[in-house]
Amino acid sequence: MNSNQNKQRTDVNSLGEFGLIDHLTRNFALNNVSSIKGVGDDAAVLKVGEEVILISTDMLVEGIHFDMAYTPLKHLGYKSIVVNVSDIYAMNGVPTQVTVSIAISNRYSVEALDEFYAGILLACEKYNVDLIGGDTTSSPKGMSISVTAIGRAKPNQVVYRTGAKVGDIICVSGYLGAAYLGLQILEREKQIYLENPEIQPDLDNASYLIESILKPEAAKDSIEYFHKHNLVPTSMIDVSDGLASELFHIAKQSRVGLYIEETKLPIHQETQLKAISFNIDPLTCALHGGEDYELLFTVDPKDLEKVKYMPDVYIIGDIVEENEGLKIHTSGGNIKDLVAQGWQHFKKD
Amino acid sequence: MNSNQNKQRTDVNSLGEFGLIDHLTRNFALNNVSSIKGVGDDAAVLKVGEEVILISTDMLVEGIHFDMAYTPLKHLGYKSIVVNVSDIYAMNGVPTQVTVSIAISNRYSVEALDEFYAGILLACEKYNVDLIGGDTTSSPKGMSISVTAIGRAKPNQVVYRTGAKVGDIICVSGYLGAAYLGLQILEREKQIYLENPEIQPDLDNASYLIESILKPEAAKDSIEYFHKHNLVPTSMIDVSDGLASELFHIAKQSRVGLYIEETKLPIHQETQLKAISFNIDPLTCALHGGEDYELLFTVDPKDLEKVKYMPDVYIIGDIVEENEGLKIHTSGGNIKDLVAQGWQHFKKD
Repeated sequence: MNSNQNKQRTDVNSLGEFGLIDHLTRNFALNNVSSIKGVGDDAAVLKVGEEVILISTDMLVEGIHFDMAYTPLKHLGYKSIVVNVSDIYAMNGVPTQVTVSIAISNRYSVEALDEFYAGILLACEKYNVDLIGGDTTSSPKGMSISVTAIGRAKPNQVVYRTGAKVGDIICVSGYLGAAYLGLQILEREKQIYLENPEIQPDLDNASYLIESILKPEAAKDSIEYFHKHNLVPTSMIDVSDGLASELFHIAKQSRVGLYIEETKLPIHQETQLKAISFNIDPLTCALHGGEDYELLFTVDPKDLEKVKYMPDVYIIGDIVEENEGLKIHTSGGNIKDLVAQGWQHFKKD
Repeated sequence: MNSNQNKQRTDVNSLGEFGLIDHLTRNFALNNVSSIKGVGDDAAVLKVGEEVILISTDMLVEGIHFDMAYTPLKHLGYKSIVVNVSDIYAMNGVPTQVTVSIAISNRYSVEALDEFYAGILLACEKYNVDLIGGDTTSSPKGMSISVTAIGRAKPNQVVYRTGAKVGDIICVSGYLGAAYLGLQILEREKQIYLENPEIQPDLDNASYLIESILKPEAAKDSIEYFHKHNLVPTSMIDVSDGLASELFHIAKQSRVGLYIEETKLPIHQETQLKAISFNIDPLTCALHGGEDYELLFTVDPKDLEKVKYMPDVYIIGDIVEENEGLKIHTSGGNIKDLVAQGWQHFKKD
């Protein structure tokens, strides 16, 4: 028997989420010729014959990613598919299949799982993906969900985080910050639940903000527009950790700098108003809120006309030289350094 | 707000594991032409151009599938890859990539995760698979692991559970029952740990039985033999829930009956001896133990010669007409109905 004493103990939170992934996967190489891209983008890229398939996987854990006090299971099922489908879109691919694995405690009944799978079915229908497998197991406590999405792409149209070039235009596919505010509302609603656990939130009349957090949609229309108009972004990522965090990924992996215009950031009027009533700067919601599942992408200036005709697209800035760093031009006319709170995802608040 | 009262509540354990999966996936159809086979075999089968890819996924949960009291993290990492690779082999495929997602509580240090990933790396090297992605997230309690394996197969060589024909020979790729007994030993060892939590099990000199549960191997050699000798089994499944359970899958999905010979079941001498010392019938270990990760497969009688020259293969019975049911010929000369405890996997003991 070995003694466990005197061993070094480094807290996982000390590395940050992305630092931890880098650390854990540093010794792994890609040895199979079919492995084109592994860890480090929205999805892995595999070559199969003349085709390319995309693989993305996400884990959702009760108490970390969702709170049963205000998350209807049908919405949870729907969202667990959407967040993975979104990663396939972020590679400019078309999702085709998903696997869903769940671990559940005996607190969950068959009827509860039926609700969860009804949400999965809805999302599968909406995004044209087939449920092809999974695993169902018990858990000592709570619920964990692991979804893997599989997609297809034309080999010459896969878009990585690495391709942004100086002079490219930075675009976002829709409004930012709503999901974060929706979450703040639900956290407040939770108090009602805690006072009477028999009452579950009724979200049939959910506002735009609450729907943004509980039942987000992936940017299917944007990808269809790209394919229809033969527009291939130079880089792309989906906004899951917050716009600022995703901008850092693009800048770091493309080795470029960038600036964005505060006044160009797409913030819905409801988000603006609710943010103010919560005493939060709407800009903070848009930059650091996360879970928007819009696409952040860059295009070559020659494609500007194509982008302009895209519905719901917002041009928010430009790619510049790496040594210029990441800046935000404020509405007041100042230039500030961009900071990325999402990079400390694993750390405690 | 809706009241939750008066709603029907069906315990998930009442359906059994396979019944639950059937129930939850009953409304899902395969709509994409690339989806050849979805839920219901060891792996899903996708058509990509002229090629076939296989996708399998498994979830391992602390306190359900492994106990940290006696599971070294390196072994756990290794095993989490092996159990998925085994599913790809069970389709007669070659594994090529894996994704690994983990949810961990702050009880786990970076050094602990390093151990876990060292085991994953070892398995990736042994089975020639690339780690191409995953997710790393926190968990309120314990550790959950979700692995998805991706493999390749020649389109005309994929082997399903559905292809066994009357007259086929039933084979197993190696010894059965060792993992189950290894687990019994470890459960006993756990008492030592509980009395002194500073002491971790030292398994460097682990016996065959303990290695079978903590560091199983998938039947890579068998698949290589099949491919080298152009031998395509008529049906195949890996032995994860116990031989009897897997025989029921083959029989049900191929719509056949079968019998096996008790005297032909491959039980290692160490398993025999330890079973007796534990007052357990060795036959029970072999039939219902589970986690052996050997391959159970059927071959056409014309391939008997090829099978005979296969190393470590055991011919254990024959496929018969469906109406003859599933029988075991005992060493005493009796014929008994086979029962499958694995089918009640989700139920409590």
